[in-house]
Amino acid sequence: MPIHPPTRGFDTAEFETRTRKAQALMAAQGLAGLLLMSEPELRYFTGFQTLFWQSPTRPWFIFVPATGKPIAIIPAIGAALMRQSWIDDIRTWSAPAPQDDGIGLLTDLLSPLARTGETIGVMKGHETHLRMPLGDWERLVAALPGLRIADATGLVQGLRMVKSPAEIEKLAHICAIGSATFAAVPNFAHQGQPLDRVFREFRRAAIGAGADDAPYVVGGAGPGGYADVISPPTARPLAAGDVLMLDTGCTWDGYFCDFDRNWAIGHADDTARRAHDVLWRATEAGIEAARPGQTCRDLFEAMAAVIREMDASGGDIGRLGHGLGMQLTEQPSHAAFDTTELTENMVLTLEPSVSYGDGLMMVQEENIVIRSGGAILLTTRAPADLPVIAP
Amino acid sequence: MPIHPPTRGFDTAEFETRTRKAQALMAAQGLAGLLLMSEPELRYFTGFQTLFWQSPTRPWFIFVPATGKPIAIIPAIGAALMRQSWIDDIRTWSAPAPQDDGIGLLTDLLSPLARTGETIGVMKGHETHLRMPLGDWERLVAALPGLRIADATGLVQGLRMVKSPAEIEKLAHICAIGSATFAAVPNFAHQGQPLDRVFREFRRAAIGAGADDAPYVVGGAGPGGYADVISPPTARPLAAGDVLMLDTGCTWDGYFCDFDRNWAIGHADDTARRAHDVLWRATEAGIEAARPGQTCRDLFEAMAAVIREMDASGGDIGRLGHGLGMQLTEQPSHAAFDTTELTENMVLTLEPSVSYGDGLMMVQEENIVIRSGGAILLTTRAPADLPVIAP
Repeated sequence: MPIHPPTRGFDTAEFETRTRKAQALMAAQGLAGLLLMSEPELRYFTGFQTLFWQSPTRPWFIFVPATGKPIAIIPAIGAALMRQSWIDDIRTWSAPAPQDDGIGLLTDLLSPLARTGETIGVMKGHETHLRMPLGDWERLVAALPGLRIADATGLVQGLRMVKSPAEIEKLAHICAIGSATFAAVPNFAHQGQPLDRVFREFRRAAIGAGADDAPYVVGGAGPGGYADVISPPTARPLAAGDVLMLDTGCTWDGYFCDFDRNWAIGHADDTARRAHDVLWRATEAGIEAARPGQTCRDLFEAMAAVIREMDASGGDIGRLGHGLGMQLTEQPSHAAFDTTELTENMVLTLEPSVSYGDGLMMVQEENIVIRSGGAILLTTRAPADLPVIAP
Repeated sequence: MPIHPPTRGFDTAEFETRTRKAQALMAAQGLAGLLLMSEPELRYFTGFQTLFWQSPTRPWFIFVPATGKPIAIIPAIGAALMRQSWIDDIRTWSAPAPQDDGIGLLTDLLSPLARTGETIGVMKGHETHLRMPLGDWERLVAALPGLRIADATGLVQGLRMVKSPAEIEKLAHICAIGSATFAAVPNFAHQGQPLDRVFREFRRAAIGAGADDAPYVVGGAGPGGYADVISPPTARPLAAGDVLMLDTGCTWDGYFCDFDRNWAIGHADDTARRAHDVLWRATEAGIEAARPGQTCRDLFEAMAAVIREMDASGGDIGRLGHGLGMQLTEQPSHAAFDTTELTENMVLTLEPSVSYGDGLMMVQEENIVIRSGGAILLTTRAPADLPVIAP
């Protein structure tokens, strides 16, 4: 039975607030506009939501000017949907058009700024991509002599890191759906069940529980543990003594959960139980450390201190959690390199991992929101002891 | 009941052939290597398949040298999975690492080529993105003075356009699953059923029929037709007189189907029936025209001639079909601008559309493979007459 959902979409006030905040930061940084082209950024400023981004063919752009509403420069196939948004100025072309896939429209828009030597921001930093052909980007820059390009990665990521009440409501909802789906796993994951069938049933269960989709379902299973956390499933049947891990990013109204669960099939050996215990306590330390004023590095160190009881290396995943929202993984990173200060209404994953035995590893993950008093779990906490699914 | 699947994965010989063909073209074009970074290209040359690409955080690279196997330059989190591939030279770093996310490793790899003024190919043309931070790209280029960068878009897309027997087997399988799922739609789409529930049941049915996932499910429904083909579903219940369209990209072993179906709920009006008839005959014309030696433009013109019976504009979707494979939409495009010659073993969509009435449109889509004697349907052909789902 689907869990009762919150309202889909956002009020116009939400987009006005986002735009106003961006424009205040742009003013402080001397930016005459932001040129954005990735799905989450377009959605952040317009609400434009479609699965059509899965087609790599067409580029999409918005321009956030120094004042006023964002301007959409998009393929005509998206015009009807964009007209449902709060945006008024929608400029379209019949894409695909290899000779001019929006570059002429962008040149027209930006030429006045180029003539006066203004600076615009684009996202060119960590965790960004250029979602347009590099050759078109080079042509656009060449067509706009005088225009200065600044890196607006920090500006945009900084805004997106802190979630609004409506965003948190959506994130809490999809985390609740994820928790309900994990609770149902023992119904379809048992000794003899092929792993690929477990994945298939997981997806169906998540969608049945109310997820719009379960685009990210990964995991592993093997005797005493698993060696890899990003592989597609094999058809190997689950066997007694296996440790099974499932990690999912399910979506609701364009927002992700991202967490995992571990189970032993039939029985668990001491090392697997110890790994689970270490990770559970590392997560507790992370929850305790996740409060306003602390940094991502503090959060990392709090978890790493517990992980070192079992694993001096700290694993090779690169970090112990990250931001969560419209993307499966967002800024910031819980890592020694990230000194981002935690603030109220950030939504984060805590994702400690340990390596053990002969190339095995275990990962646990929870999703939290930072409140003034500390972290609140959005996920139903994993059990302290590695749960055993009876054969 | 799932349809019996072919074998997952590919023989090593498949990757050897792909690499050898690429290297022959590279030699002809004077390229000392290809630097690739997008999911389908990495998978094409290595078989590396993971849903982890949904996380935008980490860049991934392969380098195809003039001779020998490709070299992987990837985050350590992917090493275990990449070691299962045919690749021997796997260079990793602990990502994310904002100060050096693989750029040092790439610089080491490419410096010898830079010193001798060689040219490498990257994909910077139509339908490509730069899947790494633009700032990192700029730093990499600056660190390699003397290295020349050529556009290898045509080289790589040209290879990927023509499918191997094993690829066609996978595509045929997911098309069969898609056809079985569309056949089941009248079981859950009926008057009074909210559209978002139809989408949800469609996903569950596709996965139940054997799809690994149904990442792309879009469509529309409204009185006499729909106005938009890329929107997420509303909760509006289907009503008598609606035309319902569902369009899906389901996946199996990393290959997509991409086709749609239309239904009338309860009864159909004359205009909707006529639109369906025009599109069905446009598709017939497309199937007839889709044979080796014809061009995509020929295919476009054959379909457009029928569409013009009802719609002089030809719609504003930009093209009447495209390539299909590891991506929902691939090269080539059935459009007046695309003179790609059709060759045996291309897998294509035929996707004619018409606009009619007050902003309504209809789309039909089938998937075909080009054989020496002409097109073979991979999808169960849509019925000639707009099917009516009894209330």
